[in-house]
Amino acid sequence: MSEKNVAILGATGVVGQQMLQCLEERDFPVRELVPLASQRSVDAGRTVSFRGEEVPVRLAEPAAFEGADIVLGAADDATARELLPEAVRRGAVCVDNSHAFRLEPDVPLVVPEVNAGDIAGHHGIIANPNCATIIGLVPVWPLHQAAGLTRLIVSTYQAASGAGLPGLLELEREIRCVAAGEEVGESAPFQYQLAENLIPQIGGFNEEGYTSEEMKMQNEGRKIMHLPELRVNCTCVRVPVVRSHSESITAEFERPLSVERAREILESAPGVRVVDEPSSSRYPMPLETSDQDLVWVGRIRRDLSAPDGTSSITFWCCGDQIRKGAATNAVQIAEYLV
Amino acid sequence: MSEKNVAILGATGVVGQQMLQCLEERDFPVRELVPLASQRSVDAGRTVSFRGEEVPVRLAEPAAFEGADIVLGAADDATARELLPEAVRRGAVCVDNSHAFRLEPDVPLVVPEVNAGDIAGHHGIIANPNCATIIGLVPVWPLHQAAGLTRLIVSTYQAASGAGLPGLLELEREIRCVAAGEEVGESAPFQYQLAENLIPQIGGFNEEGYTSEEMKMQNEGRKIMHLPELRVNCTCVRVPVVRSHSESITAEFERPLSVERAREILESAPGVRVVDEPSSSRYPMPLETSDQDLVWVGRIRRDLSAPDGTSSITFWCCGDQIRKGAATNAVQIAEYLV
Repeated sequence: MSEKNVAILGATGVVGQQMLQCLEERDFPVRELVPLASQRSVDAGRTVSFRGEEVPVRLAEPAAFEGADIVLGAADDATARELLPEAVRRGAVCVDNSHAFRLEPDVPLVVPEVNAGDIAGHHGIIANPNCATIIGLVPVWPLHQAAGLTRLIVSTYQAASGAGLPGLLELEREIRCVAAGEEVGESAPFQYQLAENLIPQIGGFNEEGYTSEEMKMQNEGRKIMHLPELRVNCTCVRVPVVRSHSESITAEFERPLSVERAREILESAPGVRVVDEPSSSRYPMPLETSDQDLVWVGRIRRDLSAPDGTSSITFWCCGDQIRKGAATNAVQIAEYLV
Repeated sequence: MSEKNVAILGATGVVGQQMLQCLEERDFPVRELVPLASQRSVDAGRTVSFRGEEVPVRLAEPAAFEGADIVLGAADDATARELLPEAVRRGAVCVDNSHAFRLEPDVPLVVPEVNAGDIAGHHGIIANPNCATIIGLVPVWPLHQAAGLTRLIVSTYQAASGAGLPGLLELEREIRCVAAGEEVGESAPFQYQLAENLIPQIGGFNEEGYTSEEMKMQNEGRKIMHLPELRVNCTCVRVPVVRSHSESITAEFERPLSVERAREILESAPGVRVVDEPSSSRYPMPLETSDQDLVWVGRIRRDLSAPDGTSSITFWCCGDQIRKGAATNAVQIAEYLV
């Protein structure tokens, strides 16, 4: 494999930091690493660790992309929209984790286990899907291939670090307050106290009362799986967990799908680890699924509520949303580019 | 109202303590209060507070029910099964919060907002349903009356104190450990660490992979709503919340039901408080719904996944499982007896 100059836009954030670690772990052929961040990080003299060296952070500005072959985007929507076209103009291919380009028709939106074939059609930008969408689709896709997905009903249990480093630090701060019997006070970036609480809102609301996070599961899911008519009902809830999103999923199919067959399919599906032994209380949990790259699937069972003649399976899955839900998925996509 | 002699079986537990408080708050006509507990509590000289007095705990044994008009049961299944028939034999009427008698054909299983009429058919024992079932059915029932419920898909987010005082104390201990950066160690009564985690198991598993808690939503729901064919798919998850269970519910109906009509119905439904203002981020949350008696309902919206011609509504609700999910519901039933 030829070595590449790799820039990371937003290298000091929680996803950017994880991208660095994934590049190292997966032995990605990096010739030069260019970590980019805001003026504030540059002024603070921030560095990032990569292969045992401290690499100084450079300012994220158009000229910084000169010579970059691959840009991994871990910045917010506005920064991505402003800077990634500049990177493309300078010949780089961008894998962007923001929401900015995900639904643009000429931008592939990719979960490699599902639609790696779409990568080839890129015009300089490939989008990384929403974290909860990636974690749900990794197990849903092989079941769809077997039986034809028609409907998804999902309730999520999403970790604090889905809101980035500020979310992670805020939950830790709140837990210390609660443990000490102190008032939690202002809870930014969350709407309300998250410790010992649940917040059924991630993102803003649309006219029908769905949040932007909930609509991503449908709109991104349709694009990734090439199922433009797919119907998805999603309820996204922030829970007081540091890391790893969990999802309770009911999936209906066109064709019959037994629980036994679903389990067999999942056991051989890429990116999935089946952990489903009720008799020994083994099932996926956020604490166990943090800091690894597979989506763990368990509680696989028949949907007892399915009307006669409706093929429907229910299961529970957990995955690290910073790794497979963001950084690992982006680096996997980048691997297809080299 | 004539005054009654009221015994509480399991008066020192979290539900028993809450029953005492509910009797006081609701000004229940108590002539004599008889708090009953185990030999260990008696030996320890335990008392309970009632109307400003400290009442000594007596031993829970058959003779203790002499003279009792009403027994509120807040003990485990085995204790309820052993002692409540003794209370009935001595002329008392029992409202029991355990699972012991819930599905027996001659025992009414009652959520007063749903089927208070069933109370009259009792033979000495009336059962209080499972906490998650009560909290889900309070809002589901008025929607069923309007449109004919056919299918329920529920994912729960259940608080630590659903496992009683030991559960509540264990979560508080674990949060102190986590805040101090210490190992949590043994997590009884939970299967695993609950702080910063989720446990998708409450109760034991049946052959199909459903837990006993999940089957209660179907089996108790069928009995309470007199819908023997109702199909329920429930996923029950323990979350690191001290108090108040939350549920993400999708309900399908025989007849059309608009979101606007569903909201109107819920706004005038007994036991329900609609808190549903997305534009100002107002929705039910466990912290806000603890220590009060209503089931708060929000995030009411059309089920985007419903097939053409299927009437389906999705919502989110929270309720205090120690109060409405247990103690308050039992005292409400007892009020029908006086």
